[in-house]
Amino acid sequence: MTATRFDVIGIGNAIVDVITHADDDFLKVEGLEKGAMTIVEAKQLIALYDRIKPTVECSGGSAANTIAGLASLGGRGAFIGKVRDDHLGDIFRHDIRATGVTFDTPPATTGPQTATSLILVSPDAQRTMQTFLGACVGLGSDDIDEDAITAAEVTYLEGYLWDPPEAKKACIKAAEIAHAAGREVSLSLSDPLCVDRHRADFLDLARNRIDILFANEEEIKSLYQVDDFDQALQVVQEHSRVAALTRGEKGSVIVLGDEIYVVNADPVDCVVDTTGAGDAFAAGFLFGLTNGANLAAAARIGNVAAAEVISKLGARPMSRSST
Amino acid sequence: MTATRFDVIGIGNAIVDVITHADDDFLKVEGLEKGAMTIVEAKQLIALYDRIKPTVECSGGSAANTIAGLASLGGRGAFIGKVRDDHLGDIFRHDIRATGVTFDTPPATTGPQTATSLILVSPDAQRTMQTFLGACVGLGSDDIDEDAITAAEVTYLEGYLWDPPEAKKACIKAAEIAHAAGREVSLSLSDPLCVDRHRADFLDLARNRIDILFANEEEIKSLYQVDDFDQALQVVQEHSRVAALTRGEKGSVIVLGDEIYVVNADPVDCVVDTTGAGDAFAAGFLFGLTNGANLAAAARIGNVAAAEVISKLGARPMSRSST
Repeated sequence: MTATRFDVIGIGNAIVDVITHADDDFLKVEGLEKGAMTIVEAKQLIALYDRIKPTVECSGGSAANTIAGLASLGGRGAFIGKVRDDHLGDIFRHDIRATGVTFDTPPATTGPQTATSLILVSPDAQRTMQTFLGACVGLGSDDIDEDAITAAEVTYLEGYLWDPPEAKKACIKAAEIAHAAGREVSLSLSDPLCVDRHRADFLDLARNRIDILFANEEEIKSLYQVDDFDQALQVVQEHSRVAALTRGEKGSVIVLGDEIYVVNADPVDCVVDTTGAGDAFAAGFLFGLTNGANLAAAARIGNVAAAEVISKLGARPMSRSST
Repeated sequence: MTATRFDVIGIGNAIVDVITHADDDFLKVEGLEKGAMTIVEAKQLIALYDRIKPTVECSGGSAANTIAGLASLGGRGAFIGKVRDDHLGDIFRHDIRATGVTFDTPPATTGPQTATSLILVSPDAQRTMQTFLGACVGLGSDDIDEDAITAAEVTYLEGYLWDPPEAKKACIKAAEIAHAAGREVSLSLSDPLCVDRHRADFLDLARNRIDILFANEEEIKSLYQVDDFDQALQVVQEHSRVAALTRGEKGSVIVLGDEIYVVNADPVDCVVDTTGAGDAFAAGFLFGLTNGANLAAAARIGNVAAAEVISKLGARPMSRSST
């Protein structure tokens, strides 16, 4: 196999997060499902924005967070995702490139604005997301850079990409290119409601097209429509190659056929915001795997990366070192 | 005197901050003066933006931070400042209104974009700011809302307003309206280099037009061109009505003629970012004064507000409660 230029190339929705605090009463009054990511129209987002507290804006997007996290650990990352040629698109491009990630997807020059996700963080550190997909719906097969996919040890897909209509075709194409080049393909299930929307596709992917599956407890239970984690564990053992399952404060469980590794969560003094915990785990785990760590060691790196991100507001590690 | 609608009305540059970490080597290579606020052109800012680490965007501006801080303490605040009718202007307006502040200054519909300040936070928590004034240069006397000034117990001006050419006339007008209505006028000296640029104006203001002067140690020394704080203290005693002087970890000193109150700083476990410490002190102090506290008690409220803001990234308190 030829040498790689990237440890991981991620494909995902390119989103700028708009983050604020909100309590349970506010979520109830607004009719928002706590803990979920809901796709909304621009006008719904604008109406909600008018009613929320002051915000902080920073780059987000699930797979983009993972690749930025991988790069801040020292990994070699690339990202494919669609922004518009607008101010938010400039912010997204700056921030991901500034971590050292290669990001060359051309921005859309017409159509809706760069995607934003309004993230409401509850006092118990849970997050509720309202996402306007905007320019992300323009991501298509033409945006899949064959050379970059071929040059990456792992191609990482986020489940959220099954929401915009053309992006899943792009993902399938990327997975085929990666496998044809002898590389690995990974999928994050993203969100239990996202699994609900695309269960048949995700089951086919998990069985037949994916080498490394990421899911949290709710997502894997949703995928197999079972009530408890142990049932899900039994199915996933027969089902997938590597499954990396995250369980919040219970840590993570890595499954490879008969091998099961249970890794405790890293202690965190004060959980501020769980946004990006799964993304950060995937960053640490994939950084470990692509840099020679075994499954258990990779999971420990994932847990450390997740612990860092949930100790602060926002979904990406905030680098303290300069260029 | 008639009843007031506002505890404090602030007039200041309306800025969206772009915050990142940078170490001393980076500041040196870029030729940036550590700890200072420097006015730059748009193209300088864009060039620097291309070289910095990932950023977080949030509303800023010195007086705007103070009024937002006052409102988050439960005070009645209003703000006058100029944004453009662009995306950053929308963010600024949303965030200040979302704290409960009245902000009705019409945005500019032509001319440069909403102001941004690129804030580089050092590992020792100092901040270095590069500010493009943008739409702020459009603030003029016409923007001074006479009814609002008359209805505010204190009119609060930031020294930075002496940088855009028309804004200082607007400030003088506001001070005259306030005094004619029997209200008080307050000035923050903003920055030692800002004092250098406008010393003669600031000396005249401090002697003749200001009821409450805010300055940190470096600013008050710069104002009187003296080498140590005790010398500055002697001059300010003869000079001003109330002077509220902040000294970082040494706390604050409040001067009213012969009365001097020395108030210790609030302990902070981990100082993350000193951006906004002075703004937050002014918020707490003015909230106290306009709500019946004596000078020493007001200073203690100021110290608590400052301690909260320096414990996290960014210049405004991040409200945890919902609407």
